Amino acid sequence: MSFYAAPIAKLIEEFNKLPGIGNKTAQRLAFHILNGSKENAYNLSEAIIEAKEKIKHCSICYNITDTDPCDICKDPKRDNKTLCVVQVPRDIFAIEKTREFKGKYHVLHGAISPMEGIGPNEIYIKELLARLQNTKVKELILATNPTIEGEATAMYIGKLVKPLGIKVTRLASGIPIGGDLEYTDEITLIKALEGRREL
Amino acid sequence: MSFYAAPIAKLIEEFNKLPGIGNKTAQRLAFHILNGSKENAYNLSEAIIEAKEKIKHCSICYNITDTDPCDICKDPKRDNKTLCVVQVPRDIFAIEKTREFKGKYHVLHGAISPMEGIGPNEIYIKELLARLQNTKVKELILATNPTIEGEATAMYIGKLVKPLGIKVTRLASGIPIGGDLEYTDEITLIKALEGRREL
Repeated sequence: MSFYAAPIAKLIEEFNKLPGIGNKTAQRLAFHILNGSKENAYNLSEAIIEAKEKIKHCSICYNITDTDPCDICKDPKRDNKTLCVVQVPRDIFAIEKTREFKGKYHVLHGAISPMEGIGPNEIYIKELLARLQNTKVKELILATNPTIEGEATAMYIGKLVKPLGIKVTRLASGIPIGGDLEYTDEITLIKALEGRREL
Repeated sequence: MSFYAAPIAKLIEEFNKLPGIGNKTAQRLAFHILNGSKENAYNLSEAIIEAKEKIKHCSICYNITDTDPCDICKDPKRDNKTLCVVQVPRDIFAIEKTREFKGKYHVLHGAISPMEGIGPNEIYIKELLARLQNTKVKELILATNPTIEGEATAMYIGKLVKPLGIKVTRLASGIPIGGDLEYTDEITLIKALEGRREL
């Protein structure tokens, strides 16, 4: 039920479908569009279609890209010997921001999750293994999330890749910098203890 | 600086321009579009243009509408004798939800605010006065916000309309239902005291 004219109700409904956008925010956004310039409305509308039409998966690393191979895969300055495996493209963004990693990536587009019916074949593991045949990769960094699904995925890939003679590593788990022991959950604390290093 | 392909960076940028949408949320929304169905992306894109193109101001009440006059203005069941003046179209939505008001509306599209350079001529006050000439309106409810700007606007309109012999009222201010005296600001408490009623 809506007291708004149909095109407004429709726009609110569409905004409402976006994740984390409730009814009130959807209304606020719709009115922002109505009160804003025509140019801004067209820019947003076109950006949605552009992104949807132009963005594909890189045929090498499966990152999202508008060129194939993607900018990272075709960058000659990046190290082919280190490959970092992530769950989703946004993880690449997070790692790139650190400017610490100079290797290449492989995006799984998910993690193994029997609860959600996602098995190894539903994510890009086969493609990773194919990529590791006749490869220069010396180290595979499994940067899946420190969650049950991410750990299971890392374990699964680790078992398959170790026999190929490639070093397999996992990102460290522990208390985040600026974090507080008191408010750290048990499992993180256990991981932090396990991973303790000599000073 | 972005590590994303241009069409994604552009979409994030456009989402980022929306009110209350920060960079992280903009990223989340952009990836939702990329991972979602093509249909959903097109629906949102088109809804933005549809709303922008089809929505006009009603020539009677200045509410936003896709028909002229708007649904409320042309509804014969609504009372022509009571007119409720609001700042923005969303206020109509809030009042309609109560199902208590059966009169008609007038939307000012703002409030007088010398700080922001908005004088009486920048909002639809002239149009309200014109509408009140040779009118059946017996009561004008000034439902502008209980803020400095809203109060000033109500005072200004009240002064101009009272000489026409029309009853001018203002929504009650006070402690909201479910509110707590302890956490009520001073000015609201003063208003609540001033407006006290006999039991």
